[in-house]
Amino acid sequence: VSAAYVLGDWGSTRLRLFRLVGGDVTDRAEGPGITMPGTVPARALAGRLAAWPDVADVTLCGMAGARGGLIEADYVPCPAAVDDWRNRRVRTEVQGVAVAVMAGLSDRSAIGVPDVMRGEETQVFGAVALDPALRAGDHRIVLPGTHGKWARVVDGTVQSFRTCPTGELFALLGGASTLTGDDKPGRGDFDQGFARGLERAGEATVAALFEARAARLLDGRGRDWSRGYLSGLLIGSEVAAQADGPVVLIGDPTLCGLYGQALTAFGHAHREIDGDAASLAGLKLARGTA
Amino acid sequence: VSAAYVLGDWGSTRLRLFRLVGGDVTDRAEGPGITMPGTVPARALAGRLAAWPDVADVTLCGMAGARGGLIEADYVPCPAAVDDWRNRRVRTEVQGVAVAVMAGLSDRSAIGVPDVMRGEETQVFGAVALDPALRAGDHRIVLPGTHGKWARVVDGTVQSFRTCPTGELFALLGGASTLTGDDKPGRGDFDQGFARGLERAGEATVAALFEARAARLLDGRGRDWSRGYLSGLLIGSEVAAQADGPVVLIGDPTLCGLYGQALTAFGHAHREIDGDAASLAGLKLARGTA
Repeated sequence: VSAAYVLGDWGSTRLRLFRLVGGDVTDRAEGPGITMPGTVPARALAGRLAAWPDVADVTLCGMAGARGGLIEADYVPCPAAVDDWRNRRVRTEVQGVAVAVMAGLSDRSAIGVPDVMRGEETQVFGAVALDPALRAGDHRIVLPGTHGKWARVVDGTVQSFRTCPTGELFALLGGASTLTGDDKPGRGDFDQGFARGLERAGEATVAALFEARAARLLDGRGRDWSRGYLSGLLIGSEVAAQADGPVVLIGDPTLCGLYGQALTAFGHAHREIDGDAASLAGLKLARGTA
Repeated sequence: VSAAYVLGDWGSTRLRLFRLVGGDVTDRAEGPGITMPGTVPARALAGRLAAWPDVADVTLCGMAGARGGLIEADYVPCPAAVDDWRNRRVRTEVQGVAVAVMAGLSDRSAIGVPDVMRGEETQVFGAVALDPALRAGDHRIVLPGTHGKWARVVDGTVQSFRTCPTGELFALLGGASTLTGDDKPGRGDFDQGFARGLERAGEATVAALFEARAARLLDGRGRDWSRGYLSGLLIGSEVAAQADGPVVLIGDPTLCGLYGQALTAFGHAHREIDGDAASLAGLKLARGTA
């Protein structure tokens, strides 16, 4: 009997799979996002698993459990302890291999305001598993991204969270909008724009967005400056509105670096936990390997 | 000698031309936005003018004066009186017809914050020409739109202004974003969503955006509700940040209606001036017809 198994995070834009034996990663694979046009989830997963014929079971988090995903899984309401979450996984089979799909979390702690996550909870619980300091007391764990999450974790339980779609906003405004405009060269680089955006963060965000364009037209700023400005303004505004003390950042190092700058500018301490490490630790917890 | 002349507003998405004799509009025409791919400004204008061979002169405002437009015109810095603005027009010729292109306005009244407009100043000066009550005292004139403008007009002079790219943000987020999502039917219409968005306006806007998606996933809301929610949240946030008293709205009646609801919700009086009437009055001023 093979001891090999697969852990994975299937998001809207990317599938990431890890093959493990015991506690060690022996191989990895990537695939298409689960909501990308033309993706048939069971077929896409079967295709990836074909390269690993000895795998006994698969554990997936993320949009794999969304409606229209591999199999729909619940949202566990906050406050959500790790066992509440683990017990709500659902099971299916893909080409004879047992697949467990983890639930997401939901939150209504702000009266009347619904919120959801799928996938980030795995990194949050993983970070708690990795770092004993997070198991007791009140912590703010932040996962920057397309739909960034600010989770309040108390004694290892996700008490509440709030989603900031800052990454999606930046992609839209920094892409095809009129705010960053054409490719004509101009003065200033991304970092200079970012610093200026941070300065204006905390003001009325929508009005402040327009400096990205006006500075190009009046002050000869280039597209890089303008994109940096939007990034600084949006990340800074998120941090100004959400941060209330020290923060643990989980995610891509470059993005965490930008959030770190914003947190420092607003006087909040921060440290980072590697996103892949947190994912793997959470998925091991999910499977019951850890 | 013909007394016929043309007044027009050439924006990024649309050209609007009026043929007049004396003070009366005798015909109108539309054409493509000046920055739309494939638009060669002089050729596009010549094509439209061909239908009116007796026209003696043309006066244009808007993006006609932008770099890459018909001919580049200045930005007149605020505070800008009507004569400051009229005197900065530039002249060119299209197929033998004299064309005057009006300047835009720029503002730096908030230290270090650049802002620009092209076209809206014509409606502002036009509104002042139409309405004697606006010629003295301190007024807030608001032109909702893709790049909405909040102008402070003191004794008929544009003292300062601020641009809110709320319309562009709504088009991006309400279009291809994940926030409003798919077309699956659900509970609630645009107006109900708008009312809920207004309720949440004034909170941290970026985080509040995500209710558009979470309410679809957790509460079965439909796309219309979700788009209404974004509209109410964005317009409400703009009004909450910018309004400091009574407002004169100029523009499209449907859009002005939404801004009117938001102003009422935040306790500010408002009245409307018709956008076409303001444009024409401003263009007549620009030409020296009024």
